[in-house]
This record gives sequence, C-alpha cells and structure tokens, in this order.
Amino acid sequence: RIDARRLWDSLMQMAEIGATPAGGVRRLALSDLDRQGRDRFRALCAATGLTVRVDGMGNMFARREGRDPSRPPVLFGSHLDSQPTGGKFDGALGVLAGLEVMRTIADLGLTTEAPLELVNWTDEEGSRFGRSLMGSAVWAGLLEQAEVEAYADADGQTVGQSLDAIGYRGPEPARPFPADAYFELHIEQGPILERSETEIGIVTGAQAMVFYEAVTRGQESHAGTTPPSARRDALVCAARIIDLVDRMMRARGEDGRGTVGRLHVRPNSHNVIPGEVRFSVEFRHPSDEEIARLEAQFPREAGFIARDCGVEFQLTPLLRIKAQPFDTSCIALVRDAAARLGYSARDIVSGAGHDAVSVARHIPTAMIFVPCKDGLSHNEAESILPDQAAAGCQVLLDAVLARANR
Amino acid sequence: RIDARRLWDSLMQMAEIGATPAGGVRRLALSDLDRQGRDRFRALCAATGLTVRVDGMGNMFARREGRDPSRPPVLFGSHLDSQPTGGKFDGALGVLAGLEVMRTIADLGLTTEAPLELVNWTDEEGSRFGRSLMGSAVWAGLLEQAEVEAYADADGQTVGQSLDAIGYRGPEPARPFPADAYFELHIEQGPILERSETEIGIVTGAQAMVFYEAVTRGQESHAGTTPPSARRDALVCAARIIDLVDRMMRARGEDGRGTVGRLHVRPNSHNVIPGEVRFSVEFRHPSDEEIARLEAQFPREAGFIARDCGVEFQLTPLLRIKAQPFDTSCIALVRDAAARLGYSARDIVSGAGHDAVSVARHIPTAMIFVPCKDGLSHNEAESILPDQAAAGCQVLLDAVLARANR
Ligand SMILES: NC(=O)NCCC(=O)O
Ligand SMILES: NC(=O)NCCC(=O)O
Repeated sequence: RIDARRLWDSLMQMAEIGATPAGGVRRLALSDLDRQGRDRFRALCAATGLTVRVDGMGNMFARREGRDPSRPPVLFGSHLDSQPTGGKFDGALGVLAGLEVMRTIADLGLTTEAPLELVNWTDEEGSRFGRSLMGSAVWAGLLEQAEVEAYADADGQTVGQSLDAIGYRGPEPARPFPADAYFELHIEQGPILERSETEIGIVTGAQAMVFYEAVTRGQESHAGTTPPSARRDALVCAARIIDLVDRMMRARGEDGRGTVGRLHVRPNSHNVIPGEVRFSVEFRHPSDEEIARLEAQFPREAGFIARDCGVEFQLTPLLRIKAQPFDTSCIALVRDAAARLGYSARDIVSGAGHDAVSVARHIPTAMIFVPCKDGLSHNEAESILPDQAAAGCQVLLDAVLARANR
Repeated sequence: RIDARRLWDSLMQMAEIGATPAGGVRRLALSDLDRQGRDRFRALCAATGLTVRVDGMGNMFARREGRDPSRPPVLFGSHLDSQPTGGKFDGALGVLAGLEVMRTIADLGLTTEAPLELVNWTDEEGSRFGRSLMGSAVWAGLLEQAEVEAYADADGQTVGQSLDAIGYRGPEPARPFPADAYFELHIEQGPILERSETEIGIVTGAQAMVFYEAVTRGQESHAGTTPPSARRDALVCAARIIDLVDRMMRARGEDGRGTVGRLHVRPNSHNVIPGEVRFSVEFRHPSDEEIARLEAQFPREAGFIARDCGVEFQLTPLLRIKAQPFDTSCIALVRDAAARLGYSARDIVSGAGHDAVSVARHIPTAMIFVPCKDGLSHNEAESILPDQAAAGCQVLLDAVLARANR
C-alpha cells in the first residue's frame, strides 16, 4: 500500500515552487523555478536510494536496480513543468506518484525482476517555447535536438541556452534506450470521469492533433488617418481566422477541438493599425481522417480570408500527432490493477497530448487517469482530492510491479 | 529665412536616439531614450539662449523674452516621443522646426513684441501608457494629473514613477497659463496633400474620436479536452468584436475610422483556451453626431456577441474628444504665410489627434501640415523630403512672427 499522506505532502510541497496568489502554479519549463523543482525532485530520489541521470534534453531518469540486470527497465513518470497559469497536479501528480511508488517499494525492501526508472520529462506543456511534449518527442526521435535547441521564448532565450542556464543538460543524447514498458498517471483534465463518478480511467489511447504557427502581415499605419480603403489590418484578418477555427471545430460536433490560444500583435499600440499578428492554431479529433480533412480545409479557407483582407498569410505546421492507441498488454495491467483494488473504472481516450504519446512510438505504453474537479485544467483552480491521487498511485504501483515481475 | 540644412541635421540627429534597424524610431514616452531626447533638446535650447522650464507632467517650455513683458507668450511646438515602431518625423518635426524658428530669430537678433515659448509635450502618442495627448490633456485640464500618474505600462511602471526615474517632473503643476496663441507643425500622416501635390496643409480642425479599453472574460481551460459546448473562449469573443469594429467603420464609408490596435491574451499559451483578453477600441469621424451614434451602437452590439459566446464583456471609455475647429484668426495667419511664401496650400481636417487639440480648448490655435511619403505614418518607413520640412518651418516662422508682433 502506498502512503497517501506522504504522496499528498509531496504534491503540496512541490506546488510551493512557483505558487501563484490564485492557488495555482507557474513553473515554466527550463526556468529557474523549474530548476528548483528539479533540484528538489533529485534530492528526494537520492534520499530514496535512486540513481539519477539526466540526458541532453534535461529529461531525468531515477533508477532502482532489479534482480535481473539483463532486463530492460520499466519506466513511469510524467512532467514537472506547468502552464503559465497552471494547476498543482497537471504533470506533478505523475512524477510524485512515481516517487511514492519508489518509496513504497524501498520501504517494503522489495526488489523487482526488471529495473525501474522514474522519469521527469522536459517541457511537456510547450507554453514557453511553443512546442508540447518537447523532451519526450526528442527522446522518441520525433524531433531533432539540434532543431529544438534553437526554439526561443518570447524574450528570445533559446531552449539550448535555458538548459545550460539551469544546469540540466546531461552528457548523453536524448534517444530511446531499450525499455520494457512505460506507465503514466495523470489527471484527466476533462469532465468524463467526474460526470460518470468513476475513480480510474483506463486510457486506451490519445486523439490525433495538428499544431500550426500562423502569421498575418498587413501594413502598419495611422489609425486616425488611414481610410478604410487603404487599410491592410493584420488583426482584423487574424480575427476572422480565429472565428473560422471556432466554426470548423463546431462543425465537427462535440468531438471537435479547434483553438487559438496564443497571439501577439505588432506593434500593439492603440492608434496603429496592426502590421503583423502571430498566433498558434491547433485542431484535435479522435479520428486521423478528420484531422486530414481539417488540414486540407483550414489553409485554403484561411487563405481566402487573407486575400479578402489584402493581408499576407503564412502557416507553418509545427507538429502532427496521429491518434495513438496504447499497448493492449499494458492497458490490461491497468485494468486488472483497478479491478483487484476495487476501484470503479472505465475506458477513456485522452483528449490531451501526453509524454506517453511520444514514448508509445517505441515502447509498450499505457496511462491511468484520475478525475479532476469540474474537468478543469490549464487553470489555477485545477483541483483533485487526496483520495483520488492515492487511488491513481495505488493502480500505478500495482501495474508497475506486475510488469516488472512478470 | 530659416536654415533648411540646420533643420534637417537636427532632425537626423534626434532620429539617432532610439533609431531602429528598419530606419524608424522607438523613443517611448518617459523612457530613458525619451530622457536622452529631452536632454539634447534642452541643451540645444540653452545654446540658443532660451530659458527652459518643466512642469509637473514633464511638459517642457523653452522661452525667449519679448519686448513687452505684459504680453502673454505665443506658443509653438509638438512632441518628441514616438510610437514603438514609429518614424523620424511624427512629433519631432514640430519641435525641431520650432527650435529652428528660435535659432533663426536669434541669428537675426530679432526681438518680438510678445514672448515666444517652444513646447515639447509629454507623451503625445499614448502607446506606452494607453492614453494619447497625455501631457497636453493634463495641461489643458482635460485630465487630472493624480489620475494620470497612476497609469501603468505593460511592465507595471507608472507615469509617476517614470517621471521621477528620468528626472523630468518639474515643480509647478501642469495647467493652462495665459498664452496668446499656439501653432503646431506636423506631418499629415495621411495621403491627402501628397495626392493633390500640395506643399502646405492649412489645418482647420481635427475630427471627433472616442477611445475605449475593452475586456472579455471567459474561462481558461484545456484546449485538448474541453468540448465545444463547455468552452467560454475570451479570444473567439474578442475576435468577433474586432470584426464588428471593422464592419461598423466600413458602414460609414471613407470617413469612418475604427481600429483595434492593441490586444493582450491571458494566459497566452497555445493549448489553453484564453481566459481573458484586453484590447483597445477606437472610433473616429469628422462628425460629432456620427461618433454619438457609434457610442450608442457599439456597446450594445458587442454585448450581444459576448452573450452568444458565454463571455463577460466590459467596456471603459478612456477618452472622448469632440471635433475641434481651430481659431479662424490663427488659421488666417497660416494661410497668409503660405500665400506670401508662394507655397501651394489647401485646407484640411486632421485625421489624427494632436496636442493642438488639447491646447485649442483654451488658446487660439492652428496647425500646419506637410505631406509625408505615401501618407504613411506610425510606421518605421515614414518619410519626408528636406524641402517639405523647410517649407513647413518657414510657414511656422512667418505665422509666429506675425502673431507675436501684431
Ligand atoms: N497534458 C497536457 O496538458 N499536455 C499538454 C499537451 C497538450 O496540449 O495536450
Ligand atoms: N499625431 C499622432 O500620431 N497622434 C497620436 C494621437 C492619435 O492617435 O491620433
């Protein structure tokens, strides 16, 4: 049995690093607060007898040896970075429940057959450098580290500079090493489990998504003197494209997702017609076919809007992730654990991207979801109950032990 | 005759302070670059024998005594602050042409009947603290200094702190002192003079305008998990309001102006549904009646949009300026000067706001426009020819001398 109290305390202590007045967390990837979180995590791992190594992307692996040194390790974990106005549990739950698994096993003096490795992936949120699942995607070979290191935040600081600044660039390149399986516990971040009063979500896979960077370019000019016929307003054009994204989402019904979450105006002065607007666009859907249709339709229709506005439109696809089914044997371990422990459980498809989606390209993977209040996440009000955290952690322990000792 | 070469050199030297790589100027109000511009201006004034005083808003007055100490001074000037990506001439032309007027009079050893005062008004552009014509509006009693001092820029620094930081808070409060007249030379910032191949614009007044601060408030949530029915997206709502502003402008034909120039998204992360968007809205029109209709229509229609989006909408009027006709006797002096000097000239209404609009509330006022290339302003590519600057300066000298010696 895991120690529910110790798990909760470690969650609350981690939430102090980057705590916001509104009760949330702001611990941006590769920031100094992220470094503080990592330092604490490393110290806790060391105190639990784990050996920590860091790869070239700052991904952290905390290892406990198994009985059979020839066996590849069973991995589990999540991420410690947060959204700019994020919650206490998105990511941190998976890492600290993983730590609680390690502590419980250490307390019981157990030795598993396979080694165990607890992972903290770098920059899952993608809100600082614009690219979600960054560390795990490089690890999985979906992105080149050299390319990723050049990504810059809003202040022009790059991923490479930030890794060096916080001292978390490890010696070995990030790349898939032989591993037996990967398990990730996470809050659902949506309303399904809570509405159906279910304790455990058995995640069967994740939906497809496509992320773009969009730019509209018009002409800066004086808001008081430039007549309607002479305007080439980059923001009016962007506004119509934002409306298009919303309409395209709604045309797909309740499974559709289409969001513009980030937007910057230049020069951003009240009496200057905007000359340039940069914004993110993302679409998600459980079906790869629907994403393919969105990818064909969106650039065409946005291009028509831009032409009407006399504005240039540029669209760069940043990331395409196909719908990712998880491994049936790993899913079965999660299902069995929930049943054995007597938790109510149901199958669920993840609406969010997770490091597990990157890892699943190479390694048998499954995820465990627990409900969160009002399905709310990426919000400072994100919240879960100690019992919900403990239930997820217990299932994680059970599945990890079953896999490592099989 | 003014020294066209000396005028041009002083313009080019001032443009070095805050010069941008694209050939423009970034010299934001009350920034350290603004201080550098002010320091240089003060030194040039002192070298011309003028006495400089600074009021509590940082407005600078450089005085040359007249023969009759009982007469109130004739004022002329403009502003040295710029847009974030502004040009070399917007504002700086009026101040440095004013300096050239003072230098010419000093060189000729002339003494006018009335004293002369050259003015550099604080923060005309309004792009840093959100409020155009700030220094002149406080001077004219249209705004309270105490209120203005609390305005903050995007980094939270206030007007009051900035005045102290650059050392330009003078001892006496900003308020209208007795003055005989005010003249301001400015680039047109629009296409009318250039298209009609006219050298001098005789500005008969300025159009009406209303500026708002708008906020939409929805709910931050996860872009991947939140279904369409549960979304309250503050940016989709703002986008539809931006489109409304554009449509309301176009419904007024070529005289209409409606612009959203500044916009900030929170939390501004690609995978978070925006929880809050703040943006500027402004409408302008030559007719006060049309502005009154816009003021009635806009809050109502924007409110309908927000209700449809399930988003809260808040609108704060920041500034209302009625159409401001200038003084007929001052206008006549400009018209006479242009005729006497042999320049082609035409009457014109200002599309932009100017410090002259504040000042005109209390003092007989007129403005002189010169054309700018492609009518482009609030753009780093803003440009004029040395001859155009000289023509405006010559008319300014002529009008000022006529007024001060009458
Ligand atoms: N879990 C989570 O919030 N991940 C961020 C990646 C995404 O946008 O889905
Ligand atoms: N002249 C000028 O650009 N003034 C700024 C005030 C306005 O927005 O019209």
